[in-house]
Amino acid sequence: MLTHPPRWNVPAPDPELREAAVRHQARLIKPTGSLGRLEDLAVDLAAWQGQLRPRARPAAAVLFAADHPVARHGVSAYPPSVTRAMVGALLGGGAAASVAARALRIPLGVVDVGVVEPDPGWASTEHVAFLSARAQEESDVTVDPAFGAEGPGPTVRAGAAAVDALAGGARVVLLGDLGIGNTTLAAAVACALLGADPEEMVGPGTGVSGQALERKRGVVRAALARSTGSEPWTVLGELGGRELAALVGAMGRALERGAVVLVDGFLVSVAALLLVRMQPGTRAGLLFSHRSAEPGHRRVLEMLQAVPLLELGMRLGEGSGALAAFPIVELACTLATEMATFDDAGVPGRSGS
Amino acid sequence: MLTHPPRWNVPAPDPELREAAVRHQARLIKPTGSLGRLEDLAVDLAAWQGQLRPRARPAAAVLFAADHPVARHGVSAYPPSVTRAMVGALLGGGAAASVAARALRIPLGVVDVGVVEPDPGWASTEHVAFLSARAQEESDVTVDPAFGAEGPGPTVRAGAAAVDALAGGARVVLLGDLGIGNTTLAAAVACALLGADPEEMVGPGTGVSGQALERKRGVVRAALARSTGSEPWTVLGELGGRELAALVGAMGRALERGAVVLVDGFLVSVAALLLVRMQPGTRAGLLFSHRSAEPGHRRVLEMLQAVPLLELGMRLGEGSGALAAFPIVELACTLATEMATFDDAGVPGRSGS
Repeated sequence: MLTHPPRWNVPAPDPELREAAVRHQARLIKPTGSLGRLEDLAVDLAAWQGQLRPRARPAAAVLFAADHPVARHGVSAYPPSVTRAMVGALLGGGAAASVAARALRIPLGVVDVGVVEPDPGWASTEHVAFLSARAQEESDVTVDPAFGAEGPGPTVRAGAAAVDALAGGARVVLLGDLGIGNTTLAAAVACALLGADPEEMVGPGTGVSGQALERKRGVVRAALARSTGSEPWTVLGELGGRELAALVGAMGRALERGAVVLVDGFLVSVAALLLVRMQPGTRAGLLFSHRSAEPGHRRVLEMLQAVPLLELGMRLGEGSGALAAFPIVELACTLATEMATFDDAGVPGRSGS
Repeated sequence: MLTHPPRWNVPAPDPELREAAVRHQARLIKPTGSLGRLEDLAVDLAAWQGQLRPRARPAAAVLFAADHPVARHGVSAYPPSVTRAMVGALLGGGAAASVAARALRIPLGVVDVGVVEPDPGWASTEHVAFLSARAQEESDVTVDPAFGAEGPGPTVRAGAAAVDALAGGARVVLLGDLGIGNTTLAAAVACALLGADPEEMVGPGTGVSGQALERKRGVVRAALARSTGSEPWTVLGELGGRELAALVGAMGRALERGAVVLVDGFLVSVAALLLVRMQPGTRAGLLFSHRSAEPGHRRVLEMLQAVPLLELGMRLGEGSGALAAFPIVELACTLATEMATFDDAGVPGRSGS
């Protein structure tokens, strides 16, 4: 691969603010540590945001949608036309992510990075913003590298630009994906990055089993047989789908803008693994929302040393896990910001301390 | 014990509505099962509420506060005066539960069932309702049965009346507790009910370790040496604290009113175990919010066959875990209620199905 990955100008968390945030937690009227991971989240966000009292809003959710030539091999329980229909349902307000984002008052954007037969009538609606950002064709990865000689750069940059357009002022950016066939590509990328066996990394996705699951594994094996190593930019260029490439760019750009990224499920976690392999300093700005039912997700999270906030057996994509976890992140910030201190409240401290 | 537990008139979930709710989930535009436990929650609530589209609001949170003579044995990291101070902080709006309930727009009530030296100035504030419902004295359970010959009935009834007063119209009732020394009594009750060893069931509570933790175990052993069996009403009368008794009554009454109860941590789970042992039909109306860091909680949840929604290492009490989990319950209801169906949205279904 002759192209090179972008270098994201990602800030490092402030160690002094981290220490100050830990001291602040100890002053709040509760036994130290008794809010568990809500305290850790508040400290991480304070250090990332450079302010003692972290904020979860403004927040914004951005979903990337694309179709994939590998879908012709019958790797999904649903026909490829579902991606197009789901973009319509998102814009219409009836999809899971539309409903959740509306309920949580989080602006939601959907970005077409390569849906088959996109509807020319797609446009932003009352609740959901729409962006067309189709930058590249994608090849069938069992036959050719996904992005050919130009590499994944154009779609990565399109993902970054989508964050500028749809999540510019957000302190927390929720990222998600939709696309029939995309867990096949994510499994291939994860196998290439981790040297894992497709047996372990390929799961049901939308719900395949039996022969279809075997077909999906065969497709991943065929793709891996053509791939040339574990260098992440090369892996993305050879095996990655357009959502994955766009997510890598969106994530890098969101971090560069000073937001934290709330990672959804398997797809977005694989994009996170690509980004962290390219630039390890990005890891500090990533929060992991949930462990999905997709079996490969566990291994990917372990490699990222990520313990997600939720484990509810979800496997929908569409940013649904990130949306479900957002209230926990928000609560952590609100508690750190609004709780009284022992001094304020006149509450006695620990016995003998 | 000559007294008898109340018999709660708790409705059974509607099996036909459960089946209809399962069918409804299959019509929503997502792969069936892909929302994991959010689907299960929606189905459970639909069956409990007798409506296909379940609702999480109105919701209400009620916390019971009391002190305990066992605290004189040094079983907590904090002096008993903290209970009183924390009631003040809750009413003042700066305690964790006050902050969380305000952020979630959930009415919060605090009920004094036996705080030492209650402040005569305590009254409902803008954000938090206050109720004085002191029904009984409590004895040091290492010396005497907690509630003497009259048994726990008066405090159980006070807890039930508090739900009538503070959570009358709620579809979801969040229950919590505060009281220095109360995990000691909860551990004793759990040991008596389950035949468990204090070594396994007694944990740090607010944060004791070393000698103080050994003292706490010794207190539980001394209490158990005086107890006369595992019949739940007797156990509650002999070993229970006033929050535990009030929680049993509050829980029974909330279920009787058709609400589901969102159970907080160790204390409220032990109250749930008491109630379910007295009347197994109550189990269906209980949702478990989180697995706390208190080690005995795991065993109590297992006995209740409860897999909680969150595991965030929280151990504060004050209903904080129930408040943290409420948005998940609400999201489950909102998705089941507002998502489009495949027919509505014109989204193709599964291939070949």
